[in-house]
Amino acid sequence: MGSQLSNTVVEGEDNTKTIGSTAPDQLLEIESLEKILNYKFKDKRLLVQAFTDASYVDDKCDSYEILELLGDSILNMSIIDEFIKLYPKESPGPLTKLRAVNVDTEKLARVAVKHQLYRYLRHKKPLLEEQILEFVEAMEKYPLHSNGLLKVPKVLADIVESTIGALFRDCNSTETVWEDKFVGCGQHPVKKETARNFAAKNAIDNFSKFFGDL
Amino acid sequence: MGSQLSNTVVEGEDNTKTIGSTAPDQLLEIESLEKILNYKFKDKRLLVQAFTDASYVDDKCDSYEILELLGDSILNMSIIDEFIKLYPKESPGPLTKLRAVNVDTEKLARVAVKHQLYRYLRHKKPLLEEQILEFVEAMEKYPLHSNGLLKVPKVLADIVESTIGALFRDCNSTETVWEDKFVGCGQHPVKKETARNFAAKNAIDNFSKFFGDL
Repeated sequence: MGSQLSNTVVEGEDNTKTIGSTAPDQLLEIESLEKILNYKFKDKRLLVQAFTDASYVDDKCDSYEILELLGDSILNMSIIDEFIKLYPKESPGPLTKLRAVNVDTEKLARVAVKHQLYRYLRHKKPLLEEQILEFVEAMEKYPLHSNGLLKVPKVLADIVESTIGALFRDCNSTETVWEDKFVGCGQHPVKKETARNFAAKNAIDNFSKFFGDL
Repeated sequence: MGSQLSNTVVEGEDNTKTIGSTAPDQLLEIESLEKILNYKFKDKRLLVQAFTDASYVDDKCDSYEILELLGDSILNMSIIDEFIKLYPKESPGPLTKLRAVNVDTEKLARVAVKHQLYRYLRHKKPLLEEQILEFVEAMEKYPLHSNGLLKVPKVLADIVESTIGALFRDCNSTETVWEDKFVGCGQHPVKKETARNFAAKNAIDNFSKFFGDL
């Protein structure tokens, strides 16, 4: 952790931006991430930025914060769009609650762990690595949402959102981000009747399977 | 107001949905709205729904609430996307504030008045028409944002968001909604230096020209 991605960007012969092409191992890390995301970035720098914490920033690469902000708004939009299609007769109140429980920090952090995204984070925070590993281990004890019992490193949720932001910036399509790539893949087992119950905050732990097929 | 749009939906010879085709005047109203929006709806029912208040709902047409929820999230996403492109080095805090002052109720309500959208609202609320007209007249006294002095009928902001939601649902493209149609048309006169000041809440009244060229 903390150094898996190079921030060296060089121009390839075909004018595409590639990162770490001078270091085969680092290029492999980019490819490995792209495989997880099932998406090949035109601009690899976006992918590197999405995994760069502010503590790691230098003059070659900005931190993920802006991409996280963008990804957060895309995620909110895509989820509400999806829920409206699933439950066209539902009123805004329950739909908004349903969205809230589906984009909370722990749920997104679990996505980062499940897909091993946390391994690619670049940071220089002495305690962060240990905190992340504690959360990863604790997830085994709490396979569903812990409902606030676990201490969740926010950075894990952040990199899920920044990755969504980077995907959108690279392909310029919310449809691609939602339908084909990272978010919303797989079947959603939710039914309207149960969704109404799940929208209640105290049922949050029952709903963690929303991202189950990611 | 309150009855300009018919909710009669009939199948045309080419199987497209048309509304009010039995009443030429009402068809003209749909066309007039489409002209304002510079967009021709494939499904006219979405446009009617976007202008239907809950007080007017019958079994033929739902209210605009769901489209408003969708439009709100699209507007938030599109604005943050635009600001990040304009100010790629700005940090999330100021960008979030900048977004907040650009999608507040009064600003959106002014958009509804400026483009005459309020004339197409369908409702059965006895006092609403008078409240809207009061706001329309007051806008002449306060050509810029009143900074909380004016009483703004929320429904005016709602129909701007529901229209954005209807546009998105009809064309399934945020790019179309943002780039070509309703939001973000024209030049934005904002400069980075001034934007920083405008992000401060007390400067909100100086910033109302963001939607000026809509």
